Amino acid sequence: MNFSIIRVARTILNVTDLDKSRAFYVDALGFIETERTDEHIYLRGLEEAHHHSLILQKAENPSVEAIGYKVEKEEDLNELEIFLKSKGMKMKWMEAGTQHALGRTLRVQDISGLPMEFFCKMDKAERLLQRFDLHRGSRVQRIDHVNCSVPNVQKAHDFYVKELGFVCSEDTIDEAGHLWATWLHRKQTVHDQAFMNGVGPKLHHIGFWLPDPLAIIHACDVLASLGYAQSIERGPGRHGLSNAFFLYLRDPDGHRIELYNGDYLTSDPDNEPIHWDLDDPRRQTFWGAKAPDSWFDEASVVLDIITREEVLLEDPILEKKKPEFMI
Amino acid sequence: MNFSIIRVARTILNVTDLDKSRAFYVDALGFIETERTDEHIYLRGLEEAHHHSLILQKAENPSVEAIGYKVEKEEDLNELEIFLKSKGMKMKWMEAGTQHALGRTLRVQDISGLPMEFFCKMDKAERLLQRFDLHRGSRVQRIDHVNCSVPNVQKAHDFYVKELGFVCSEDTIDEAGHLWATWLHRKQTVHDQAFMNGVGPKLHHIGFWLPDPLAIIHACDVLASLGYAQSIERGPGRHGLSNAFFLYLRDPDGHRIELYNGDYLTSDPDNEPIHWDLDDPRRQTFWGAKAPDSWFDEASVVLDIITREEVLLEDPILEKKKPEFMI
Amino acid sequence: MNFSIIRVARTILNVTDLDKSRAFYVDALGFIETERTDEHIYLRGLEEAHHHSLILQKAENPSVEAIGYKVEKEEDLNELEIFLKSKGMKMKWMEAGTQHALGRTLRVQDISGLPMEFFCKMDKAERLLQRFDLHRGSRVQRIDHVNCSVPNVQKAHDFYVKELGFVCSEDTIDEAGHLWATWLHRKQTVHDQAFMNGVGPKLHHIGFWLPDPLAIIHACDVLASLGYAQSIERGPGRHGLSNAFFLYLRDPDGHRIELYNGDYLTSDPDNEPIHWDLDDPRRQTFWGAKAPDSWFDEASVVLDIITREEVLLEDPILEKKKPEFMI
Amino acid sequence: MNFSIIRVARTILNVTDLDKSRAFYVDALGFIETERTDEHIYLRGLEEAHHHSLILQKAENPSVEAIGYKVEKEEDLNELEIFLKSKGMKMKWMEAGTQHALGRTLRVQDISGLPMEFFCKMDKAERLLQRFDLHRGSRVQRIDHVNCSVPNVQKAHDFYVKELGFVCSEDTIDEAGHLWATWLHRKQTVHDQAFMNGVGPKLHHIGFWLPDPLAIIHACDVLASLGYAQSIERGPGRHGLSNAFFLYLRDPDGHRIELYNGDYLTSDPDNEPIHWDLDDPRRQTFWGAKAPDSWFDEASVVLDIITREEVLLEDPILEKKKPEFMI
Ligand SMILES: [Ca+2]
Ligand SMILES: [Fe+2]
Ligand SMILES: [Fe+2]
Ligand SMILES: [Fe+2]
Ligand SMILES: [Fe+2]
Repeated sequence: MNFSIIRVARTILNVTDLDKSRAFYVDALGFIETERTDEHIYLRGLEEAHHHSLILQKAENPSVEAIGYKVEKEEDLNELEIFLKSKGMKMKWMEAGTQHALGRTLRVQDISGLPMEFFCKMDKAERLLQRFDLHRGSRVQRIDHVNCSVPNVQKAHDFYVKELGFVCSEDTIDEAGHLWATWLHRKQTVHDQAFMNGVGPKLHHIGFWLPDPLAIIHACDVLASLGYAQSIERGPGRHGLSNAFFLYLRDPDGHRIELYNGDYLTSDPDNEPIHWDLDDPRRQTFWGAKAPDSWFDEASVVLDIITREEVLLEDPILEKKKPEFMI
Repeated sequence: MNFSIIRVARTILNVTDLDKSRAFYVDALGFIETERTDEHIYLRGLEEAHHHSLILQKAENPSVEAIGYKVEKEEDLNELEIFLKSKGMKMKWMEAGTQHALGRTLRVQDISGLPMEFFCKMDKAERLLQRFDLHRGSRVQRIDHVNCSVPNVQKAHDFYVKELGFVCSEDTIDEAGHLWATWLHRKQTVHDQAFMNGVGPKLHHIGFWLPDPLAIIHACDVLASLGYAQSIERGPGRHGLSNAFFLYLRDPDGHRIELYNGDYLTSDPDNEPIHWDLDDPRRQTFWGAKAPDSWFDEASVVLDIITREEVLLEDPILEKKKPEFMI
Repeated sequence: MNFSIIRVARTILNVTDLDKSRAFYVDALGFIETERTDEHIYLRGLEEAHHHSLILQKAENPSVEAIGYKVEKEEDLNELEIFLKSKGMKMKWMEAGTQHALGRTLRVQDISGLPMEFFCKMDKAERLLQRFDLHRGSRVQRIDHVNCSVPNVQKAHDFYVKELGFVCSEDTIDEAGHLWATWLHRKQTVHDQAFMNGVGPKLHHIGFWLPDPLAIIHACDVLASLGYAQSIERGPGRHGLSNAFFLYLRDPDGHRIELYNGDYLTSDPDNEPIHWDLDDPRRQTFWGAKAPDSWFDEASVVLDIITREEVLLEDPILEKKKPEFMI
Repeated sequence: MNFSIIRVARTILNVTDLDKSRAFYVDALGFIETERTDEHIYLRGLEEAHHHSLILQKAENPSVEAIGYKVEKEEDLNELEIFLKSKGMKMKWMEAGTQHALGRTLRVQDISGLPMEFFCKMDKAERLLQRFDLHRGSRVQRIDHVNCSVPNVQKAHDFYVKELGFVCSEDTIDEAGHLWATWLHRKQTVHDQAFMNGVGPKLHHIGFWLPDPLAIIHACDVLASLGYAQSIERGPGRHGLSNAFFLYLRDPDGHRIELYNGDYLTSDPDNEPIHWDLDDPRRQTFWGAKAPDSWFDEASVVLDIITREEVLLEDPILEKKKPEFMI
């Protein structure tokens, strides 16, 4: 490859009520509001030195406009364009300034139909890591990963690994030997991007990194105090996969957020992927608790990068089941 | 009253396989084994300066032989005898030395049929609180409370409050105004003794105090590492009632253990009981997670203090339901 | 004795700048402000169901007006009056309402010259333990103890134990066998009241209970973020004595506050006091860090209950030294 | 550059008593012992999937034999050889198998005289991250960084940044504008390698990553329980620089170990180095505690890669001072 992707960097969520969303993300979860306009709220975590990692965008219906990746240098965007054009993928450029606080951006409907974007420059913002007086709620530090539901995990996996340079840290194989789910990274954590077998393309959840396990417990307490107990969908618990301590939440529009802490360094080229067997009970959720049906059945629809219509959904190629160790 | 009860002090559990039980309580949960004989394992927490707070006793079938309370002075036992005799309750004395490491003890089948015992003296043991090198698993500190399922909570409540001097810290009232559950204390915590509406008399669980919330998370991790994921029945979570951070476990015989941290001081005579409404959704388990059926349906049978037969069970006088805030 | 003291319940600190003090106690440490007037700020911890446990009172110079204890019932105050009068101690009554939110109060200059007060009734306030959205800074839960510097520890000890019914949990003996320091409790914790050998009578510090050890680390972080790094005098560390995890702070007037978590239950009449040897290096501060000179040399002056003048100071009867295990 | 360095990967410490060292590192700190021979103990952290990250090697006197870095591929070692030879640096090859569990290794006396080594292959070992039953003491996860004292920080900085491809995350500048200390990384954390102004070349400390802040507090408790209170040299505290929560220990030979948790992700090419001013009081140790003299004055000597003699020490080119914010 002639380009270098750094990491997952942001997501644009369409939400139906900015005030309701702000109460959830800022007042309860403790995201920092970098900026707010009539149509947008720009949020970042306490560690983040860029303008935002999450955009809440006013819309008629909940959906996902884009999942954004940061590349190493401007030229990488040109190389990515050449490569993606060679694959015949639907693309568009958004010139610098078209999107607030962002340099020029290449949008593409990826191999699974997901609306991805690549950019190099985002305005900087103050890292508030040492403004402990501003730490609230879950004390969100930074975006960690996105997890998407797609009909053909093997196809998505191959494209991201062989064509885009992602590395697999862990995966899940069904009894017939098919790839059921895969955890892929560019930065040196367990993942930037996960794909799992399901109706899709959909965004299953966005994972945010927290400073320590007690921040997740405090997040539950604050959420419950503010009337958001119903927003806690699953957890807290320990993932077998990735080893992270986790909590899954549903925002006021149903978008799923994961609070996440405790995976491991994946810097080494000889790091061997961990293979989990879909039906091995020992590999299920580490503490044994079951995920609720909603966690398997619901996810956020995504938009076409050109028409802004919802992307049509397809059924997964592997029989649908409910493994309990997915993260 | 002419006697003074200090606190709940121990429980005697009949278990079917001492080695299996030891692996669970000592190797996984981190209880300190004070002594082991062919028939008994004597366990204590890291803070406890007495010989034991839990006895595992070899038996054919799992059951509860006794729930023990410590009184202030030897004379209190005589006063208790006079009082209980006046109530016509089934009693027996066990002279000092009859029970290992214990002074003379008054056993009684209480108003609900529970096998209670009262004693003043137990052999001392080293408090290992500052032997942090010996802290393992859940780092159990001390016995905190027992929770019993009884057919008539109001009757049990009245006896313990009016006749034995317990104080109510919190309770739960059903829609008809009946007392559904009650939390009673002698020591200055939320409870030594809870009663809740159900088939009984049964021991629902024994609660042990932990040093901090992370000890509960670490306990889950260690349990899962050692193959005890299936022993985690409910939690971790925050109780609305008592405010404690909790985890419920089932030991190899199905006896239920609660790991518990974070209630509040109840020293003040003007402390007002908190009344929870059985059907108020805001008063349910603080973070909203539901308890599994087993948590409502299963509990340990108790023995007759004279015959050592299982005490016959009665159905509860209030309609059985599954409120989710019980602790 | 014919009276029953429940626990230490409040302290009245004279401070020179209410705004500065409020910034420290409320904005940084997270105390709840129940009420503020021109002359007073009334503070409580998150667990406390009474109006306040700390009063900041506008004054020309920093000092301590009173250390308040709560008794079980109103009649106890009369019994205390009779007893203290029999000892010839300086006393005065303050009728109900004289002090905001407080019932009638008996003030006394105690055996060491400390301005103590006893009351039964204080207005109730909402317990905010489960309003986790309001937890800030150190998440102060409740007042735990006061520690006073007095010239004759043995005299103070004997008075509180033999005449007032306190129980000793731990103490420190110098090489000649003299009582150097003593930890005394009424409620079932390690102490309500400590006395240590030094120039006095003075208030050395007020200890507040925190929910867990991470709350102390977060308190340090928040204090430093807000410019209060210089207010951190000692710690964080583990006490050998009491086993608590601690931090000592100096407020804007130099009053010393201890944040404290992790001692043990002292409910049992057969709890044996732990005796620490002043010169035994193994009994020093558990992790070995030394306390700064200021911690030994500085403490808050106290006022005469009648004249409101500063009480004259006396040198300690035992040679002054700097043991490092005092808490 | 035609080579790619991945991360700091191990250190070889000469120690005078293997049993004493083992008691400290394994029994107290919780390192996993992969293997022990007559002359060596091979240690790794719970997260590490390679044979070791620390070697304790029996020797007459304490010293540092080598600081090892892992490169991306075997060919990188050849490229490194060509480059270092072009700089006229002292080098030697150690063929695969010469060092236990290690592939061929290029040793070099670096620009400051430090004994560095580069290798690509080390035997794999089981990652024990999810064997929570084996987590002990400080629950060490992985090697994080080494910090070296050198006479000319600017020279070391330039060599590692311009010639070896390290990136600066933070640095410290004295009042004259000279580079006093620098934090350099290859993996995506704040540092793999720090240099600070001092007598050198010396190894100041090795930093190990811990899972959360409470692991540091528990480490202090366990160390003190086992009689190692005197081994705690500094902390616990929060670094201004790097933001990590830290503790410094001295092993039985005086080698300094840092326990470390809580820095931030440095994946982004546009991450801007944070410049700290040596004399700015606001930039000192975040909570304000001072480091002891020993922390500034003592460090481990290093060996010549050919002669195995101690490398001669030089005074620093910048006037020696004691800034308190170094980490
Ligand atoms: Ca109640
Ligand atoms: Fe995830
Ligand atoms: Fe309970
Ligand atoms: Fe104290
Ligand atoms: Fe360091």
